Amino acid sequence: METIATPTAGADHGYISDKDRYLARLKRIEGQTRGIHRMIDEDTYCIDILTQVSAVTSALENVALALLNDHLRHCVVAAAKAGGPDADRKIHEATSAIARLVKS
Amino acid sequence: METIATPTAGADHGYISDKDRYLARLKRIEGQTRGIHRMIDEDTYCIDILTQVSAVTSALENVALALLNDHLRHCVVAAAKAGGPDADRKIHEATSAIARLVKS
Amino acid sequence: METIATPTAGADHGYISDKDRYLARLKRIEGQTRGIHRMIDEDTYCIDILTQVSAVTSALENVALALLNDHLRHCVVAAAKAGGPDADRKIHEATSAIARLVKS
Amino acid sequence: METIATPTAGADHGYISDKDRYLARLKRIEGQTRGIHRMIDEDTYCIDILTQVSAVTSALENVALALLNDHLRHCVVAAAKAGGPDADRKIHEATSAIARLVKS
Repeated sequence: METIATPTAGADHGYISDKDRYLARLKRIEGQTRGIHRMIDEDTYCIDILTQVSAVTSALENVALALLNDHLRHCVVAAAKAGGPDADRKIHEATSAIARLVKS
Repeated sequence: METIATPTAGADHGYISDKDRYLARLKRIEGQTRGIHRMIDEDTYCIDILTQVSAVTSALENVALALLNDHLRHCVVAAAKAGGPDADRKIHEATSAIARLVKS
Repeated sequence: METIATPTAGADHGYISDKDRYLARLKRIEGQTRGIHRMIDEDTYCIDILTQVSAVTSALENVALALLNDHLRHCVVAAAKAGGPDADRKIHEATSAIARLVKS
Repeated sequence: METIATPTAGADHGYISDKDRYLARLKRIEGQTRGIHRMIDEDTYCIDILTQVSAVTSALENVALALLNDHLRHCVVAAAKAGGPDADRKIHEATSAIARLVKS
């Protein structure tokens, strides 16, 4: 996992502009996950739990699609402009991430 | 959302036997979700976040499939044996839940 | 692949009542698939081809969900009523098929 | 749907280099779709049909992912280099296509 050493380096990451919104979405998803835990603990009817699991899965997919959009719009476009092997690597990386999303 | 009024009523719910295992899985998923929040907060590289989102989505789907299996094995089989309109309702309910999983 | 030796045996298969409708849906999907082949052959714009691929994928999933519903409503209910190891086998088989659908 | 007026214009489309391979894959998918039609017509066991439907769905998704990779590698990179509103439009278009794939 690549982490950013300096605060300014964060500017390379496409999602940074909307960071607060992403963090709020993740907080909400974490709460929903805790809700599913509670539903199981309280013997909630199975189908109602499944409905909630589908809702969380869908919320996570929407976060992934938003991140991907930001990534294409910033990292991939920047790499494409710079050209060279890094552009190829970035595209390959993005396609692999898309494949994991489609297959998951 | 249907909740269970009496402790013994929980026996109707197929997943109850493995309850501790489900609860442990949900705890792990909640931790992974918190991990994604932290990754965004720390400006982790986008593609690494996407990988983690796919892992959580996949873990949630596996929980859903296990719940569904338990549900078919217990509630649906019991309703089928009893027959009548409740059996039809249970099958319809299960198919709708499956459709939401496939489409989410 | 299990095939049916006698015409009457078809009655065991849940989808048989709507057979003409299923066959018509498959014909339409086959036509759409041929359409994608033609789009590629004619150098249609990539995004338009992707839209058509998503439409066919979605149509196939709907066929699968309808078959699954029929299967649960007939085969699984009949096996549940009969009880014994065949009921377990049928539920296991159905859950595996659902998992393949969710993961594909 | 955008079609190509002149033969040379096809060079703008990323998948053109592998055209024969794409066409062969679509032919195979068309054959598999015809196979599902025949399975239904011959009252094949439901679960075996579902297995085949999952296989075709998966094959279509792989075609879509390959097309998307070619599209990013060629159209999107070219638009990014050219810059301006067309680059934004191309990224937006690609993200929408990815969302349809993930959600279908």
